[in-house]
Amino acid sequence: MTRFFRATIEYDGTDFAGFQWQVGQRTVQGTFEKALKRRIKQDIRITGAGRTDSGVHALGQVVSFECETAIPIESMALALNSALPLDLSVRDVQETDDTFSARYSASSRLYAYFILNRPTPSALFRRYSAFCPSPLDVAAMHAAAQTLLGERDFAAFANELRDDRVTKREMLGFRVGKFRQFVIVRVEANAFLRGMVRSLVGTLIEVGQGKRAADSLEALIELRDRRQAGFTAPPQGLCLLKARYGVRKIYGRPREE
Amino acid sequence: MTRFFRATIEYDGTDFAGFQWQVGQRTVQGTFEKALKRRIKQDIRITGAGRTDSGVHALGQVVSFECETAIPIESMALALNSALPLDLSVRDVQETDDTFSARYSASSRLYAYFILNRPTPSALFRRYSAFCPSPLDVAAMHAAAQTLLGERDFAAFANELRDDRVTKREMLGFRVGKFRQFVIVRVEANAFLRGMVRSLVGTLIEVGQGKRAADSLEALIELRDRRQAGFTAPPQGLCLLKARYGVRKIYGRPREE
Repeated sequence: MTRFFRATIEYDGTDFAGFQWQVGQRTVQGTFEKALKRRIKQDIRITGAGRTDSGVHALGQVVSFECETAIPIESMALALNSALPLDLSVRDVQETDDTFSARYSASSRLYAYFILNRPTPSALFRRYSAFCPSPLDVAAMHAAAQTLLGERDFAAFANELRDDRVTKREMLGFRVGKFRQFVIVRVEANAFLRGMVRSLVGTLIEVGQGKRAADSLEALIELRDRRQAGFTAPPQGLCLLKARYGVRKIYGRPREE
Repeated sequence: MTRFFRATIEYDGTDFAGFQWQVGQRTVQGTFEKALKRRIKQDIRITGAGRTDSGVHALGQVVSFECETAIPIESMALALNSALPLDLSVRDVQETDDTFSARYSASSRLYAYFILNRPTPSALFRRYSAFCPSPLDVAAMHAAAQTLLGERDFAAFANELRDDRVTKREMLGFRVGKFRQFVIVRVEANAFLRGMVRSLVGTLIEVGQGKRAADSLEALIELRDRRQAGFTAPPQGLCLLKARYGVRKIYGRPREE
């Protein structure tokens, strides 16, 4: 009998060429599917909530897959972890039904971006943060982020535009705060375009450095031109914190947190 | 003219064979002295506040050294960081005088030990924490730690005993707390014996697992026998947070925090 699973996984993106399977590359999907094959002896495809780029981390990526297996649900996490490398781990496995897809059932994705904002680099956090030695104006960055809440066309922040793809997304939460020597950006949307989080963060960093006005991002949105937006912030600062399921979307109104 | 420097450095201990210089090994001291040689063109010896073991990290190790150089003090950190690998960084350099030694002037060292205490391992924190899947009794661990405050003979927790070495140390602070899925041990003493922090933590973990009573540690101290104490907790969970200078010691009374 086919069973349906939903797993929450964590990975250190440093040595992965991103989430999505690619021939000849060490990817999260490929590595996870190899572990499934070792434990369940079948070729199993997984679906992920977010296709994180090369070098991007995850604390709460969600994947779904189906297969026939007699492994009890309470043993699944241990069985998979024992077949996975140390930089990819399963936090939790639940049984679900055939209506669940980690990708299509997700109502939103929440990412965090960590910027080390002090004069000197960090040996301990270098793998999990971007380094920005010039002081950032966090209040300006946060104010700029607020102007992008709600449903928008985010084409200006997309790596690639294709006529057949919708570039509207709903920004549900967008906060910039300071924690010790880190500036942390938390951004949640129903979904993200490719490269969107990192170009949003790069643009906010330019606001924080005084290179752009905090109220200039709405005009940027209108232009729909990636070249007018900021630089692409490096991948190691980005982490997929969680995907949410079953939360009703409230279009057009920023989500309160 | 000879100038005297005090630097606060940070390192990811994963790829270092500990702090202290060893022939043919990649050590923190050796790597730092090489960077000094590249920038200042002299053979300069450094002294560290704590001789961390192989694999142990530091956020606030302090080192001192003297040399003749025309580099302005405000450029020293940048000059050294540009000659150091990414897993060893200088946070701050100050000028001091010939009475200062990072080692002998330190009044205490503060370490933190991170234990991931949940059923599944962590891909993101594996390099910076020990993994303990069985639930730990944090209150019992903290209570056990309190019995070791003050001036004691810690021979029971030393890796090696030598007749000519004093094994008395003053435990100034020892706390065990929970933060999300981590159990965090914070321990401060005037100084530590070799292997002392990790054998203390291993012993506390055994208390947390119910293998030892919380009130059994004082008797252990009396035995002065390393084999009666707990296992050596793995190095990657340990981090030297800071060394303190110029704080008056108050012998025999636990320090309030």
